[in-house]
Amino acid sequence: MEGKIKIYNSLNRKKEVFEPLNYPNVGMYVCGPTVYSDVHLGNVRSFISFDIVYRYLTYTGHKVRYVRNITDVGHLVGDADAGEDKIAKKAKLENLEPMEIVQKYTNGFRDVMKIYNAIPPSIEPTATGHIIEQIQMVQRIIANGYGYEVNGSVYFDVEKYNKDHDYGKLSGRKIEDLLSNTRAELEGQSDKRNPMDFAIWKKAEKGHIMRWDSPWGLGFPGWHLECSVMSTKYLGETFDIHGGGMDLLFPHHECEIAQSVAADGSDPVRYWMHGNMLTVNGTKMSKSLNNSFLPHELINGDHELLDKGYSPMTTRFFMLQSHYASTLDFSNEALQAAEKGFQRLMNAVQLLNKLAHSGNNDKANEAEINEVKGICKQAFEHMNDDFSTPQAIARLFDLSKKINSYHEKIIDLNSLDQETFEYLKSTFNSFIFDILGLKDESASDGSELLGGLMDLVLDMRKAARTNKDWTTSDKIRDALNALNVVVKDGKEGTTWSTN
Amino acid sequence: MEGKIKIYNSLNRKKEVFEPLNYPNVGMYVCGPTVYSDVHLGNVRSFISFDIVYRYLTYTGHKVRYVRNITDVGHLVGDADAGEDKIAKKAKLENLEPMEIVQKYTNGFRDVMKIYNAIPPSIEPTATGHIIEQIQMVQRIIANGYGYEVNGSVYFDVEKYNKDHDYGKLSGRKIEDLLSNTRAELEGQSDKRNPMDFAIWKKAEKGHIMRWDSPWGLGFPGWHLECSVMSTKYLGETFDIHGGGMDLLFPHHECEIAQSVAADGSDPVRYWMHGNMLTVNGTKMSKSLNNSFLPHELINGDHELLDKGYSPMTTRFFMLQSHYASTLDFSNEALQAAEKGFQRLMNAVQLLNKLAHSGNNDKANEAEINEVKGICKQAFEHMNDDFSTPQAIARLFDLSKKINSYHEKIIDLNSLDQETFEYLKSTFNSFIFDILGLKDESASDGSELLGGLMDLVLDMRKAARTNKDWTTSDKIRDALNALNVVVKDGKEGTTWSTN
Repeated sequence: MEGKIKIYNSLNRKKEVFEPLNYPNVGMYVCGPTVYSDVHLGNVRSFISFDIVYRYLTYTGHKVRYVRNITDVGHLVGDADAGEDKIAKKAKLENLEPMEIVQKYTNGFRDVMKIYNAIPPSIEPTATGHIIEQIQMVQRIIANGYGYEVNGSVYFDVEKYNKDHDYGKLSGRKIEDLLSNTRAELEGQSDKRNPMDFAIWKKAEKGHIMRWDSPWGLGFPGWHLECSVMSTKYLGETFDIHGGGMDLLFPHHECEIAQSVAADGSDPVRYWMHGNMLTVNGTKMSKSLNNSFLPHELINGDHELLDKGYSPMTTRFFMLQSHYASTLDFSNEALQAAEKGFQRLMNAVQLLNKLAHSGNNDKANEAEINEVKGICKQAFEHMNDDFSTPQAIARLFDLSKKINSYHEKIIDLNSLDQETFEYLKSTFNSFIFDILGLKDESASDGSELLGGLMDLVLDMRKAARTNKDWTTSDKIRDALNALNVVVKDGKEGTTWSTN
Repeated sequence: MEGKIKIYNSLNRKKEVFEPLNYPNVGMYVCGPTVYSDVHLGNVRSFISFDIVYRYLTYTGHKVRYVRNITDVGHLVGDADAGEDKIAKKAKLENLEPMEIVQKYTNGFRDVMKIYNAIPPSIEPTATGHIIEQIQMVQRIIANGYGYEVNGSVYFDVEKYNKDHDYGKLSGRKIEDLLSNTRAELEGQSDKRNPMDFAIWKKAEKGHIMRWDSPWGLGFPGWHLECSVMSTKYLGETFDIHGGGMDLLFPHHECEIAQSVAADGSDPVRYWMHGNMLTVNGTKMSKSLNNSFLPHELINGDHELLDKGYSPMTTRFFMLQSHYASTLDFSNEALQAAEKGFQRLMNAVQLLNKLAHSGNNDKANEAEINEVKGICKQAFEHMNDDFSTPQAIARLFDLSKKINSYHEKIIDLNSLDQETFEYLKSTFNSFIFDILGLKDESASDGSELLGGLMDLVLDMRKAARTNKDWTTSDKIRDALNALNVVVKDGKEGTTWSTN
């Protein structure tokens, strides 16, 4: 690997050379899901983007501690400070205890991440698992003069904070604009001194099940608080990377910074990274427009906007063909193109792994060697350039062409010296499987194919017997024996099973 | 379903009719793993046993809230009150943060449970997620006079408790015997008034990472406490079933009862259930005897005591062939017998699902009908009798014989009326897939088989072409097209891929 990795830091709006605080260790925190419903595809994209960051940093020799939280309390409907807790609301709807909702959708989330081949984080902390630490952070914020209690809830004093520090440094928003925009909302939220203020601890209203004892009575933590607490608990008071979807930049991440500065004096995050959103046929995904689909709908083609189903690896590959910080538009055409592209890459890797170099370098040709080495190097340079997977994939397609030429003998494989051939092989395989995290799906999706092939084989066995073609029927028998397949000819037809 | 379910209640040492507190709802708590190492097979057996309880109660119309905890702090080496936290110790060894250890082994545990087809619990609470509630329980125990603080730790006063209540009611142990047995251990544990006393809150020694603020200073909860707290938090102050391995009966469950009685006046548990242990070739499994193996070693046959690998469903079936409360001995002979038995059942269910009743009841024979109905009924009666899976499985083998007779036309299938045939079919399928939780493994373990079959087909295609047998080669081409298999004949041989 040559060259340094550069990361677009949302805080400075600049690409910066990535210098981990404590190389080779890297601390990375990514905002995880609020587990009150099935994870939607926009989330999946965001988590796949950070999976690539995790994979590439690991590949390049970093030792990443990757923390991604599970929000299981405190996230209110509409992302606001008042209203119902998302999980408690869903618990009422489904007639379940809130923690059953949490379990159900956390399991579902983990299953989806597995299907899309995202590596699980090193630590997956929950908001309810860190109530004490959150109470302590509220206490520090109050002690430093940036929080105030009203009627059992505690609010963050944004105006006061902005006098001493810079509220809006991440999002670029100005407090004056925010003030005028939010003035109208004040009514009904009269506990707050200022409509911009946000809850860091909420009093539990009567009937609220998820609540804990605190110095301010029974309540629960504000949504923004958990990430400030859990990131620093597991990654230290300053850490390298904080990621999340673009929609979290404001207010969620802006509030995280304010909380940390107010409580402990500094923003713990060195590089802020934000993934962009998904659109469908050019329009923002939204439930009300009926253009938002769930992973299983996409896989099964079970939605009126989908011509057919798209496998998890097709979707993953499709997502990686755009840069994580760009919007990405879902359409059948684009997905079908990705399906073909993915298949081309998988074919290339299969061909490559069957190619055999003679071991003799006599025919080696410097131009060919330099070209292959150059393409490989470029692929890494693209990844180093803020994880530019689309450009890296373009280079993999260049290499696929080379591989096909070697396979078809349009170019002699031995025009590469053996070392370069091995380098090509390891680079191409590493990119596809380790860095991009793609998987060969042909093996796993075999049950229908298996049944169909077995029918064909049994059919041919029958024909051979009818024709007294003992050579063929013996060949089939021996092959099936070797595969531990037991065939039974019964009165109702022929059945088979494995031994 | 007829008849009531009976459960052997460890508390009374009697089989009792199971009467849920709030039918059809059932609350069930099972002690989960301490996530500091790979789950061992004894644990797997215990969790499969309670999976059967969960499945059967659900099948019989109960709505079960199934809580199984994850112990992620507080469980000290040797299950004692002094010494290192198991997770913190492993974290030092693996050079990871304790919560990374927790995540790693929790993920591994969930994967193993999935492999063995155990249904995930409704709620999977963690000890670190309930520190506040544990502190509160310690406070209630102290307030009621059964706990005392010494040097930042809080101990449960067993002798005092036993004067007012019955310490030993679950295990049948007498406090006098316990006292004489433990007297010798007192040395070095001088914080305790009495060697039998157990920690409910432990002071964090210097360097102990997992620790929280409490009224007694920085510390962490005692191991027994979490289950008392989390079971009642999610299942109410009295609930139906508490399960766990036999090795947890004393002291863990005995202490749970004492804690609940001391804090809140009563034992919340109505039915205590205990699963028995695994032995290997007649000897207790133990790491020091090198006769304890991990799930993946068992699956791959990767251990000197194993003649070969045993699939997850073979092992599950093997475990279900003994009663959960009996010890079970692992041996190659027994596993190979189970492998055959499992295959016999899977063959029977495949045959059964292909049998077709004429729909005409003219040939129906009352003796045959009564025999089949009787066997089905007995199978349910065995399950009702404290979940006796070995006896229920024996009845399934009786039914398999019937199915084979119908298939071989030794007995005319139409000697059953159609209704009884459908009843047989639904009972047999429900038992195998829903109640016993077995799975057909032939479909999933198909990749090797698939490759082998495809080689055979391509070989026959080549032979047919060589022989100019166009009928056969057309048949193969059409069948592969229908299966979306693309075959490419290249210079280096024939390759295939799916479209």
